[in-house]
Amino acid sequence: MTPATTSPESSSTPDNGAASSTAPRPSPTGSGRPRRLVVVGGVAGGMSCAARARRLSEDAEIIVLDRGRHVSFANCGLPYYVGGEIENQDDLLVQTPERLRAWLNLDVRTGHDVTGIDPEAQEVIVRTAAGEQRLGYDALVLAPGAKAARPPVEGLDSPRVSTLRTVEDAARLREQADAGVESALVLGAGFIGIEAAEVLAKRGIATTVVEFAEHVLPPLDREHAYPITQELRGLGIDVRTGTAAKSITHGTDADEVLLSDGTSVRADMIVLATGVRPDTDAFAASGLELERGAIVVDEHGRTNLPHVYAVGDATVSTDPVTGARRPVPLAGPANRAGRLVADFIMDPEHARPIPAPLGTAVVRVGEMTAAMTGANRDSLDAAGIEYTTIHLHPNQHAGYFPGASQLHLSVSFAPDGRLLGAQCVGRDGVDKRIDVLATAIRAGLGVADLIDLDLAYAPPFGQAKDPVNLAGMLGANVLNGTVDVWDVRDLEQVRQTHLLLDVRTRAEVAGGMVPGALNIPHTELRARIEEVRQAAAGRPVGVICQVGVRANIAHRILVGNGLASSVQTGGMITLRAWLGDDADSYLVRA
Amino acid sequence: MTPATTSPESSSTPDNGAASSTAPRPSPTGSGRPRRLVVVGGVAGGMSCAARARRLSEDAEIIVLDRGRHVSFANCGLPYYVGGEIENQDDLLVQTPERLRAWLNLDVRTGHDVTGIDPEAQEVIVRTAAGEQRLGYDALVLAPGAKAARPPVEGLDSPRVSTLRTVEDAARLREQADAGVESALVLGAGFIGIEAAEVLAKRGIATTVVEFAEHVLPPLDREHAYPITQELRGLGIDVRTGTAAKSITHGTDADEVLLSDGTSVRADMIVLATGVRPDTDAFAASGLELERGAIVVDEHGRTNLPHVYAVGDATVSTDPVTGARRPVPLAGPANRAGRLVADFIMDPEHARPIPAPLGTAVVRVGEMTAAMTGANRDSLDAAGIEYTTIHLHPNQHAGYFPGASQLHLSVSFAPDGRLLGAQCVGRDGVDKRIDVLATAIRAGLGVADLIDLDLAYAPPFGQAKDPVNLAGMLGANVLNGTVDVWDVRDLEQVRQTHLLLDVRTRAEVAGGMVPGALNIPHTELRARIEEVRQAAAGRPVGVICQVGVRANIAHRILVGNGLASSVQTGGMITLRAWLGDDADSYLVRA
Repeated sequence: MTPATTSPESSSTPDNGAASSTAPRPSPTGSGRPRRLVVVGGVAGGMSCAARARRLSEDAEIIVLDRGRHVSFANCGLPYYVGGEIENQDDLLVQTPERLRAWLNLDVRTGHDVTGIDPEAQEVIVRTAAGEQRLGYDALVLAPGAKAARPPVEGLDSPRVSTLRTVEDAARLREQADAGVESALVLGAGFIGIEAAEVLAKRGIATTVVEFAEHVLPPLDREHAYPITQELRGLGIDVRTGTAAKSITHGTDADEVLLSDGTSVRADMIVLATGVRPDTDAFAASGLELERGAIVVDEHGRTNLPHVYAVGDATVSTDPVTGARRPVPLAGPANRAGRLVADFIMDPEHARPIPAPLGTAVVRVGEMTAAMTGANRDSLDAAGIEYTTIHLHPNQHAGYFPGASQLHLSVSFAPDGRLLGAQCVGRDGVDKRIDVLATAIRAGLGVADLIDLDLAYAPPFGQAKDPVNLAGMLGANVLNGTVDVWDVRDLEQVRQTHLLLDVRTRAEVAGGMVPGALNIPHTELRARIEEVRQAAAGRPVGVICQVGVRANIAHRILVGNGLASSVQTGGMITLRAWLGDDADSYLVRA
Repeated sequence: MTPATTSPESSSTPDNGAASSTAPRPSPTGSGRPRRLVVVGGVAGGMSCAARARRLSEDAEIIVLDRGRHVSFANCGLPYYVGGEIENQDDLLVQTPERLRAWLNLDVRTGHDVTGIDPEAQEVIVRTAAGEQRLGYDALVLAPGAKAARPPVEGLDSPRVSTLRTVEDAARLREQADAGVESALVLGAGFIGIEAAEVLAKRGIATTVVEFAEHVLPPLDREHAYPITQELRGLGIDVRTGTAAKSITHGTDADEVLLSDGTSVRADMIVLATGVRPDTDAFAASGLELERGAIVVDEHGRTNLPHVYAVGDATVSTDPVTGARRPVPLAGPANRAGRLVADFIMDPEHARPIPAPLGTAVVRVGEMTAAMTGANRDSLDAAGIEYTTIHLHPNQHAGYFPGASQLHLSVSFAPDGRLLGAQCVGRDGVDKRIDVLATAIRAGLGVADLIDLDLAYAPPFGQAKDPVNLAGMLGANVLNGTVDVWDVRDLEQVRQTHLLLDVRTRAEVAGGMVPGALNIPHTELRARIEEVRQAAAGRPVGVICQVGVRANIAHRILVGNGLASSVQTGGMITLRAWLGDDADSYLVRA
């Protein structure tokens, strides 16, 4: 959504809509349907709601108000337009008011900024270029979306600073890129920030991305973020994490941005992508219940105000895994909720509740993909939920088929097996595995149920034991005690209490091993078991290999010989990713 | 598996394995573990079982017998080796006996052909180059797999006829292709036949494929098979369906194959790919219960013989959707069942039952992919199950993002919403949607639950309303009566009883319309509703558009105006695919 348009000739002109002012207002939860539905916000959730409402009611008056110049535009496509991968601006306009009128008889009014609600009168207050109006409603759906958060950075009002929320924003950034700017700074390495940094770097602009969190894409677990950091560096992007912009000094040639770590960056253009917040300022005075700025709704999108509903980025929902309350500013949940709210308004008898979004998300970064669903480890820790996370690195398709590449997959589950979350990074097949796992989580499956999924297999597409099946097998092993695992996060603790046993080959170990570990290749372990027993001297053994497969075999040999053992899940690949840039200095060369 | 090796010096040499002949045999279902596990068949299910058994028991003796020269080879990769996409034969050998010994202490014996079971003595009879032996077992797992079915075709023993089941088969076919043969005939257009035809055609060989069923890939519904037929033709392949080889005349230069339709094909090489049947002849005399040649097993892989288990292509299972009994010769279920049987043998307390396979399958054909899960319409019809099938043609990712291409997706569900099956054909993103739907079916979700799946969305990967979500929305509409659908299969019946209304634009209709349909573009429908009422003259309206979206909108307009209506699901794209080559002669040009 664009910023509110201000009109110097603001005046109050009563709306002449007969429906709202004279007709008795049926209860939207009763048998009657609203005669006039007003939707505030014509993108994603709002437009889905309006379109669905028309398909359920041929005779309702349906009015969509949007303060911007465009409705139903491709929000998620904006970075790709900046980069030129999407060539034409028109391609971003999924629908136009004219087409929505012709197809669905919707009354779409752009340049209409809703500045307030009068719930008593059942009217919204609308500001347009022509002045202020009031518009009555029988049912009102608020879909105002989110706007860019503006951190308290001195000089943030520099004309070189842009957000990337609207078609106009994207057009301006593309113009700057076309004009041949030399350097760009992206503030924030979330989804939008990463996408923006990539498209700018690919256009030959020296690009820096700054992220306050300790790693890029903060919703990812640390070990999954590192391959993405490396991919960004491979694109020539200067990645700076654990720091933030402190002040921006506007200069004639470029801006000078001072960071909290004391360094500074010169930039010809600055993209502000430090997150979003619900765009609900207009509704605060109306008595609408908000929770940290987000609209509180029930399972049918009802707010605390009668006949007023809300959907999308501006609403708060409960995390189905952790119980945390937060808005989920994602297009998918918004679109689906818009439709379900229309169902409830027009046909409550058949309406399904709006499911709490799992926060499934995906992003392309260079040649890689990162995706996630459900809760990450930080949020599980914050919620005090007991869980185990397993890491796997299987190929996305048969290893003998050309183009095989490794997935980095983690799955978290509760002590009773309930799936809690999953993350995946890789070059191909990432989105598929996360979609399968998102489906499994939504269906309430346990980790061992993943064994039984009949996933499509042919060499170009998967493995006879798909990575998701493998996660189920490993998870089942953990649940029934066939394998005990420990996490790379506990490395230092395990080093102090366990004999670390690295079962990789000598050649592999030569490239770097955890200090103090004993190396016995797993193929020699049966013959050298007494050596391990002596070295362990009563301590349990912590087994490490490259990805976890050989460590599992070694673990079973150790247990079969009466030794206490557990396996570092994910092996050296996970361990190295978790150590990140510190890996080479931490590991010793044998 | 290779055909049985015959040994001229066959003799009976008693096995000297102490474990089987002297030790008391613990019941595998009791608390004791078998001291010797014998596995017959060292590919897929058999090898998965042996490997898992070792990981559960460090001290059991585990012997794998295979009559072939190779174990654990990449069955599904063979066609790609013939085509050269997999370059080296060694890449097909996933494991070797040496490596299996070193890693897992498995005793893998190739060239060991099991010719019978003596269940009383708990021994298998094994024929090797050295003669016949008997080998005792405490637990026996039969994983003999399937062999090529040999239809009653005169001259099928021509040396130009090969199957494509073993590494040796593949090597021979590749040699022939390398030697520059000019023409090839593939008998059977199932998965293997299609893959073989494609790789041969891509090598410049004039290739014909012959299929007895009415369309290629018989498990696909007819309308999904047509795009695959077109893709095969695009590769230069001569596709002949509804016919079969009758006789093969071996000639000096080439073979002459007479087909049942009276035509004939000359071919330098002939690939027999008319399906497989369980390779169980060796076990018939032992009292093993077979059902049409397939081994009958319970949910833990137990056969009717004590201590004898079976897994994989040679076993029969019950279709979880239709209840039909059939073998499912697919690598995924075989591998997973092998593991679960090992669990039951070694650790029955923690063993999960083997799930009945859904038959999820996928195949790459040229630039296209076809995939399916659950029951197709023919099998639902045969089982007398009531169902609705919906067809959709959404893009696999955001339409405005480069590379968008259409999926052809169908989903079948019961009157109570239970998901029964799904099929998908397209250029990209096909396997992902089928995997999600396979997961949903396995989890027992209903079609409307598909609305709630939180699938990963970013423009390169999907849509804010993913095709699977859209299927849920359309399915929910059907279930709650918001939309009534009719199937292209009922076209002639609907033509007789309904007013057909084509709501596409005039330009679209000019390219072909169902004879007798009335054309009113959906954007004009509200204004011309009385025209429809008159033309319908009391008959219900059957609405058609290109993919179904506009027809749904038109349907709601018609219903909103008091007209009975239903929508042809899938629109002209499904209708044309269903008509296939007859489409152009059937449709009229307005």
